[in-house]
Amino acid sequence: MNSVSPTSASASLPVKIAGLGHYLPERRVTSAELEETLGLRPGSVFRTTGVCERRRASRGETNSRMAAAAARQALASADRKVGEVDLILGASASPEQMIPCTAALVQRELDGPEGRSACFDVNATCLSFAVALQVAGSLIASGAYRTILVFSSEVTGESLNPNEPESAALIGDAAAAAVLTRSDEKEASRIHLARFATYSESSHLTQLLGGGALHHPNSPHTTPDMNQFRMHGPAIFRIASRLLPPFVESFLDTVGWTKSSIDLVIPHQASGHALRHLAPRLGFSSDQVFLNLPQRGNCVAASLPLALSEAWEAGHIQRGSRVLLLGTGAGLTLGAVALTY
Amino acid sequence: MNSVSPTSASASLPVKIAGLGHYLPERRVTSAELEETLGLRPGSVFRTTGVCERRRASRGETNSRMAAAAARQALASADRKVGEVDLILGASASPEQMIPCTAALVQRELDGPEGRSACFDVNATCLSFAVALQVAGSLIASGAYRTILVFSSEVTGESLNPNEPESAALIGDAAAAAVLTRSDEKEASRIHLARFATYSESSHLTQLLGGGALHHPNSPHTTPDMNQFRMHGPAIFRIASRLLPPFVESFLDTVGWTKSSIDLVIPHQASGHALRHLAPRLGFSSDQVFLNLPQRGNCVAASLPLALSEAWEAGHIQRGSRVLLLGTGAGLTLGAVALTY
Repeated sequence: MNSVSPTSASASLPVKIAGLGHYLPERRVTSAELEETLGLRPGSVFRTTGVCERRRASRGETNSRMAAAAARQALASADRKVGEVDLILGASASPEQMIPCTAALVQRELDGPEGRSACFDVNATCLSFAVALQVAGSLIASGAYRTILVFSSEVTGESLNPNEPESAALIGDAAAAAVLTRSDEKEASRIHLARFATYSESSHLTQLLGGGALHHPNSPHTTPDMNQFRMHGPAIFRIASRLLPPFVESFLDTVGWTKSSIDLVIPHQASGHALRHLAPRLGFSSDQVFLNLPQRGNCVAASLPLALSEAWEAGHIQRGSRVLLLGTGAGLTLGAVALTY
Repeated sequence: MNSVSPTSASASLPVKIAGLGHYLPERRVTSAELEETLGLRPGSVFRTTGVCERRRASRGETNSRMAAAAARQALASADRKVGEVDLILGASASPEQMIPCTAALVQRELDGPEGRSACFDVNATCLSFAVALQVAGSLIASGAYRTILVFSSEVTGESLNPNEPESAALIGDAAAAAVLTRSDEKEASRIHLARFATYSESSHLTQLLGGGALHHPNSPHTTPDMNQFRMHGPAIFRIASRLLPPFVESFLDTVGWTKSSIDLVIPHQASGHALRHLAPRLGFSSDQVFLNLPQRGNCVAASLPLALSEAWEAGHIQRGSRVLLLGTGAGLTLGAVALTY
């Protein structure tokens, strides 16, 4: 069985992104610097990953502080105060600490009024923000919350394996945030559809084995490399290349969008190789596809909202724009969100 | 500002728990055994925690295997097959491994059809299952998914600090699962309201500092006790005792339920002390409140769904029963869910 359509029809949700923001750590790490640190040939990092430079969080740039900085910008652009937020929804691949959820730490960092907002996290690795849009959209549409602050914040340094430069040099740190509210009746803004499909036979292709109960940090059997990210890029690319085209066709059929009617495709910035092949393979023109990989790297769960925030800031998205978020994450999960900004 | 009502009115959701199941690890650890191991006086563990015995997962009883066992029981009781599940929603306080999400590992363990279900996790520590009911309810009501499998699965052994026996002896391992579907029009089953409020000034009262980016397992500055659970039970009890009564009053006002009309109150099995004081302080009769703490301990996020599943199995809940789930979690978060089973 290989159905990609858990639910063939879905009502679009009267929910909009009211504001966006992001935070980039101060420290820039160029590919030349990494080549020297990792003992690689000059030019090899860009050739392998497509990344020229990436940011890396310094001491003090914690997940919650970076998220709070992005959130303040998103709240300002939505013209909302933190006291108006009903739910703070964390959407990162890894937490600041195991307990409590990072969202509670962001409420504290934002000095959010005690008891005014609920706080919890969702996790679908690189697709966490896309899943959070679906969750937040449904929660607003069903009347559970009016104003939701979603954030993704990634601090990856010690999770990168210098012996696997194709991932260690690919990944960057960042935080991004969005404020979601109900659309007015006269607004075109909507979340039309979000869809995710997990292929767990490929769950071993992207792993961080440690950090949980199976290979606990205190266990004498847990080795340092178990606490580092492992990715089989070429295998993921092969599988995603086969699965993504029918997934996207079926998704756009359900939404009722032609490919040419989409103003901007924002892909998860998975890798240079994946992004080069994505547009032609899926039938998008290259000027429809937003890229920030060369300057930002793959910022894990923060990649999609950072690209969205930077695309909006650069004027590539206006109210009424048709936007398609698209990507793959560990699982292996495919995901897409269609929205009118 | 101390508003406990982010959204004062909420439409009830035509969503039901179609089936429940749970899994208990084979190994029983009695309080007498723990007193010997931890060098405590006979009888002191029960006096401090209210727990006579708890289960502890053995090697091979992983989060995903325990969750899959609970899920098979829940699917059977809902008369559903894994191929009918659209979303597998993990709801545990800690994962099996950092990447991918535990839900993807449960799809693999259940041999769920490739690409048929989406998989992601939500995390609100001890309230994760209650949050998952709200999320799943909204997703079903908005048409995103038809059949959702929610699970909580906790393997805590190496996260317990033997120097803090009031938490180390309190906590137990378990998994529990629920299948959620849309209610038929002629069914009374509904999720009436779910509400959460986070008070992050108390976020330091329940922590596990390690496992994330702040105190990474590979950092030379991370000490073993940072990878263990810390709880200031008496302080949490004092704050919860002050916050819970108005939270519950306001919640039941919104639902429109009198206290005496509730068939069963299922509290998070936080501690013996908390549970002894809960019923009188909140105005419930003690026979309205379900307890499994003495035999199970506080099973973290699995506590609420395990209690729900055991209450249903014992015949304390039937179709049409009014059930109130209630608890506190790290954050500090208060939470309540009102449903007609």
